[in-house]
Amino acid sequence: MSSNLQQQLQQIIDNKTKPRGALGRLEELALQIGLIQQTTRPVIQQPHIVVFAGDHGIAKTGLVNAYPQEVTAQMVLNFIHGGAAINVFCRQHQLTLRVVDAGVNFDFTSNPTNLITAKVGYGTKNYLTEPAMSVYDAIQAIDKGRNIVNQIAAAGCNCIGFGEMGIGNTSAATLIMSAITGLPVTEFTGRGAGLNNEQLETKINTLQQVFEKHALNTLGEQPIELLSRVGGFEIAMMAGAYLEAVKLKMIVLVDGFIATAALMIANAIYIAEKHRTLVSGWTTLTDHCIFAHTSQEAGHEKILKHLGVSPLLSLSMRLGEGTGAALAMPMIQSAVNFLNEMASFESAGVSNAEHQTPNA
Amino acid sequence: MSSNLQQQLQQIIDNKTKPRGALGRLEELALQIGLIQQTTRPVIQQPHIVVFAGDHGIAKTGLVNAYPQEVTAQMVLNFIHGGAAINVFCRQHQLTLRVVDAGVNFDFTSNPTNLITAKVGYGTKNYLTEPAMSVYDAIQAIDKGRNIVNQIAAAGCNCIGFGEMGIGNTSAATLIMSAITGLPVTEFTGRGAGLNNEQLETKINTLQQVFEKHALNTLGEQPIELLSRVGGFEIAMMAGAYLEAVKLKMIVLVDGFIATAALMIANAIYIAEKHRTLVSGWTTLTDHCIFAHTSQEAGHEKILKHLGVSPLLSLSMRLGEGTGAALAMPMIQSAVNFLNEMASFESAGVSNAEHQTPNA
Repeated sequence: MSSNLQQQLQQIIDNKTKPRGALGRLEELALQIGLIQQTTRPVIQQPHIVVFAGDHGIAKTGLVNAYPQEVTAQMVLNFIHGGAAINVFCRQHQLTLRVVDAGVNFDFTSNPTNLITAKVGYGTKNYLTEPAMSVYDAIQAIDKGRNIVNQIAAAGCNCIGFGEMGIGNTSAATLIMSAITGLPVTEFTGRGAGLNNEQLETKINTLQQVFEKHALNTLGEQPIELLSRVGGFEIAMMAGAYLEAVKLKMIVLVDGFIATAALMIANAIYIAEKHRTLVSGWTTLTDHCIFAHTSQEAGHEKILKHLGVSPLLSLSMRLGEGTGAALAMPMIQSAVNFLNEMASFESAGVSNAEHQTPNA
Repeated sequence: MSSNLQQQLQQIIDNKTKPRGALGRLEELALQIGLIQQTTRPVIQQPHIVVFAGDHGIAKTGLVNAYPQEVTAQMVLNFIHGGAAINVFCRQHQLTLRVVDAGVNFDFTSNPTNLITAKVGYGTKNYLTEPAMSVYDAIQAIDKGRNIVNQIAAAGCNCIGFGEMGIGNTSAATLIMSAITGLPVTEFTGRGAGLNNEQLETKINTLQQVFEKHALNTLGEQPIELLSRVGGFEIAMMAGAYLEAVKLKMIVLVDGFIATAALMIANAIYIAEKHRTLVSGWTTLTDHCIFAHTSQEAGHEKILKHLGVSPLLSLSMRLGEGTGAALAMPMIQSAVNFLNEMASFESAGVSNAEHQTPNA
């Protein structure tokens, strides 16, 4: 597990003017980022948030969603015009925001510079009656996700967080988590943007029906097939985006509930494709990523526990859009900054503890 | 409990383009900050971190501390030269850092602009054998704290976090918490900067001895007397700083374990002085403050639970210096920014949920 670089990084961290381990999660982050960039002097360059938007056929039924399908397109326009929460947080932290039309049921006639058109279709089909998309479209969406990240990286970005917008997409995420973990959909079904008790029951019943119809219990290790049955274009594209970002040794931030489902798809592909691990001991895609926050959406805490990860923030948010990732970005920068800028005991002339023990 | 302004703020928050409650803690913060500033358009001006440094006589015995007393002065020099963690985070978030010599056992001959000299003494006396300071010095320290904040506010700052440096000061904080809550010192005693098991046992025994010697069980409602027996100059000064900051309707961030002990002293004074409450229903100083983070120092989570508060961050940090407050500052700014900058459903032309329920 241990490498020369890992030891070097740990030594630098331990010699900073603070008790050993006193910067807690920031020390873990500094180590992880150093290992990703394979250096003791990591840098964050042109950090981005990329929001993938797509529509879901199921949303037209109103069985699983509090808001009508049109809201996906309306929110994309809101992103373009700078009025959404993710715009506010990106401006605050000087993050470049790119919005991707992965498959919204709307034609964005004007083409502003902050919108990337990568439309795979005008929303998915209703998976209550048929597969959400063809296998071909799932693969196409993943490839587009890879390409988008590849281009962003080529322009100089090395730190990226992914967000999403898609009315009905907590349902797709729930079905994906349930299929991959083998746990019942009730474990992961939440209120999304704001269902009441009755609506929540309807959502659960609907998702159980879909789970059985598509025999999702047999598809836990077939991510592309799983996407084609119940996925979303934005989820598929985000899965491709993760794969490319990790391949390019970018620092990758995972946002909330839907972003975690997309990561699970990406991870299944990563394992199937037998990628070479970046760091000894990092066997999953998950090991490479930084989990930004725990969403208040009911299933998120459960899936994070299942994955064995602890996000940085827990602010009872449940908005998506990459807002959790954007809010966690300063922590990433803090980790890098303390590693690069803090004085050591020696350089500052501070006495180290004589009998200092490892972090209690 | 409810006021006209409170309703106005809640309505503005609820009409932003997001599901109701979806920004979680940031929505609570926006409401609290609006109420503190008595406006629906709050602003953060010239945010500051003020670090109070002081020495503790007990530290000379080595019974409660992993680092020698000299480290207090060495770290103050590190702050002045910009090499400590708090310097890094203040630079990152453009926070003005002021360091206060409240009572360090060292003469800082040069007087750089970022050091405020407010020395009450060359460290406290050893409370194993005598009171830490006179009642006069405790009052003097509190007054100096008030004056320092008053001057910083007069120069245009309206948002402030307090940090501390003082070898041995987790012991003073533990004794204060124990006296005020009536709970045994074992509840709040932790490893400080890095004690091993044996050293921790010695610390507990020492503090139990001190608690009995000074009959601290009788001083829970006598904050000045309590300070004089076991306090620190930096803790007393920070208590005064909190009182002035709340009085001036500043946004006040509470850092970690020692900062919480100082707040408890301030709160006891606040209640004794019968201050007028700023907002209907806010009866303690605690109600006015924003808790930045949960420290990994063992007693912090317990005292926060006792106070009934939930900090914003939980990053397993235990460094002091105001580092938790500095890292939470962007969250404060995010709360203000979303309130001021986000579009409403109406202004963005986004459909609101037809059957939207309050935050689940």
